[in-house]
Amino acid sequence: MAAAAPPSPFAPKSLPAMPVVDGVRYATAEAGIRYKGRTDLMVAVFDEGTVAAGVLTQSKTCSAAVSWCRESLKDGSARILVVNSGNANAFTGKRGREAVEITADYAARATKAKPSNVYLASTGVIGEPMDASKFAHLLDGLAKSGKADATEAAARAIMTTDTYPKLATRTVKIGDTDVHLNGFCKGAGMIAPDMATMLCFMVTDAAIDRRVLQGLLAKYAAVTFNCMTVDGDTSTSDTCLLFATGAASRRGQTPIVDAADPRLAPFAAALHDVMRDLAIQVAKDGEGVSKFVTFEVHGAETWAAARRIALACANSPILKTAIAGEDPNWGRVVMAVGKSGEAADRDRLSIWFGPHCVARNGERAAEYVEKTVAAYMKSSEIVIRVDVGVGAESATVWTCDLTKEYVAINADYRS
Amino acid sequence: MAAAAPPSPFAPKSLPAMPVVDGVRYATAEAGIRYKGRTDLMVAVFDEGTVAAGVLTQSKTCSAAVSWCRESLKDGSARILVVNSGNANAFTGKRGREAVEITADYAARATKAKPSNVYLASTGVIGEPMDASKFAHLLDGLAKSGKADATEAAARAIMTTDTYPKLATRTVKIGDTDVHLNGFCKGAGMIAPDMATMLCFMVTDAAIDRRVLQGLLAKYAAVTFNCMTVDGDTSTSDTCLLFATGAASRRGQTPIVDAADPRLAPFAAALHDVMRDLAIQVAKDGEGVSKFVTFEVHGAETWAAARRIALACANSPILKTAIAGEDPNWGRVVMAVGKSGEAADRDRLSIWFGPHCVARNGERAAEYVEKTVAAYMKSSEIVIRVDVGVGAESATVWTCDLTKEYVAINADYRS
Repeated sequence: MAAAAPPSPFAPKSLPAMPVVDGVRYATAEAGIRYKGRTDLMVAVFDEGTVAAGVLTQSKTCSAAVSWCRESLKDGSARILVVNSGNANAFTGKRGREAVEITADYAARATKAKPSNVYLASTGVIGEPMDASKFAHLLDGLAKSGKADATEAAARAIMTTDTYPKLATRTVKIGDTDVHLNGFCKGAGMIAPDMATMLCFMVTDAAIDRRVLQGLLAKYAAVTFNCMTVDGDTSTSDTCLLFATGAASRRGQTPIVDAADPRLAPFAAALHDVMRDLAIQVAKDGEGVSKFVTFEVHGAETWAAARRIALACANSPILKTAIAGEDPNWGRVVMAVGKSGEAADRDRLSIWFGPHCVARNGERAAEYVEKTVAAYMKSSEIVIRVDVGVGAESATVWTCDLTKEYVAINADYRS
Repeated sequence: MAAAAPPSPFAPKSLPAMPVVDGVRYATAEAGIRYKGRTDLMVAVFDEGTVAAGVLTQSKTCSAAVSWCRESLKDGSARILVVNSGNANAFTGKRGREAVEITADYAARATKAKPSNVYLASTGVIGEPMDASKFAHLLDGLAKSGKADATEAAARAIMTTDTYPKLATRTVKIGDTDVHLNGFCKGAGMIAPDMATMLCFMVTDAAIDRRVLQGLLAKYAAVTFNCMTVDGDTSTSDTCLLFATGAASRRGQTPIVDAADPRLAPFAAALHDVMRDLAIQVAKDGEGVSKFVTFEVHGAETWAAARRIALACANSPILKTAIAGEDPNWGRVVMAVGKSGEAADRDRLSIWFGPHCVARNGERAAEYVEKTVAAYMKSSEIVIRVDVGVGAESATVWTCDLTKEYVAINADYRS
């Protein structure tokens, strides 16, 4: 392993205080799967009655754990989640599937649950056989020693090249009952949409039918995690799971079973908010990040077209390096819009860097002053807005710049 | 401008001797469009009867010169080509179109030709208005002073961040007559397929109908320039033009007017060869290049699928940085195959790094020895072969690695 990268300049000064979500307990261990001197195994144990929703990577070479979750989500009951870092157990063939089965078997026995109530995720090196015997025997003890207030420790155990744990929490009312929603995720490189993204776990004590949850999760994954990219490289292991323990029903919350239930709105908004918060935290911890960048595309024919144009910008190496160099090189925005393949009217295209209009109706804006925009580029957070002039739809994509440190981190990751 | 980057390690030790192609003369000048102390304006004057074929960028934000060429190619007669470096005249609106018209007007008068017989290309900064008055007055003198043996000087005048001029030549027989094909091109960054690519100009003295030429050019662009990438960033200015002066007919070559003419085969092969040679030269001069990389994808459903998978590898920042770091991180090849969206059988996927099989049938190859493959990664030319196990089609894509120098070059380009 390379030496740890320096912390992202966007590392939060303090982490949010995570409330206890009734019905879930966390435990972590140093299993020595790859890393030394840090936790690399995390277990979340759920009370009976917990349901799960999930969005998984669309990679054609997805990991064994992703395939396992896809099966477990068919039933949607959840008793235990086991996550390891250091090895992705991806592209490990038959041995990979066996490692998953052994882990699920130990986890099921530890919680007296069916294997189909087990959820698994692995992150780390791809292609290296994972030896489940290194940690499967720990699961029984972990399952029994879980603590309700250990969310932060759980978030730390799943980190790989992350420089900070990523946590978010919201409390909202369903009817008259307070419900909590906690979420945490990891990811810093090999991050791109067309998927859930990397590993993200959220837990609520709200009592909500799993089909309703699944609808919300898919809806908001599209505009949060799937609108965020570090390097355009879609992982084999992306897993986003949302668990609802239903414990709030013991405090009087009547279960929500219908997506049209008006009481769902505050929870839906909180879920969207937590997912966006976590997605932005991933972009802000992008490998080698020096600037956090938001691309807003307006005037597109459809949301999907706007997103594709914004992603073409957010994944353009030549544009991302210009941003790293604090160069207001808006010509590269023009290039990225042009290469996206989506409809755009070259002669109505307008571009803003922060508050500064740099191009209007297909040419440099009359008021453009390079020095002013160059000064704006020194900001640590850059907003680039584009109007492509062909419609009324818009999308927002978050990313970071491309720096020499990204290259250094990824040239050294395994060696 | 940033200081010049050091030469690519693949810069040729000597340039090919370019034969004279009857019917074309080149002239260059230091017009001071952006660069100082080097040529930045190139003119090629063709004899009457010259025909042109072309493939142009598919960017939605293409440059004014690209739009102009698209019109000129409808007629297909060619008398003069004018190319400048330092300013792409892209996204320059009405003023950009005016600059093109002024240039074409001066060029047409200098050769007593129609404006539609003029071909134009511009490369350099995007979005900066181009002042044609800086060089239009030079065109008359240049058109009259052209030299038949100045191909290398022409190739140098169109360079931007290139570290060497890119030239290729072949001589073949059509029937009993020797015909020559010279080509040169430029490009080092903002290089990606889905287009012609950057600027490439080829001239032959063969007498071949322009529709036949157009068919050959489009066919070979697909498997040469469109199978090459530096950074996945498609330029606004990509232009690939092939001119045939027909002068060989004066030496006895009966004109070819039918694509099925059996005499076409050696010329077609030479054209393919020159285009592949030039495309590879571009990848070998990719900004910041330390290694030249070939991705061969086999076992795909279609050629287009194989090409997309190979491009997903060749445009993956996390894989390209691993190659720069000489890390045989084949897990990232698995990732890139998975994200391409094309059919691939995870459990039949096999991967070779040079002669070494690293993965077979969905898991690490039994004979894999990291040290051996790590030693191979120290080569300056890397071949990565993937069999995706679902069909019989294959494609090859050429690229370079992604280094800190790429970031440095592109963070500094304009400032």
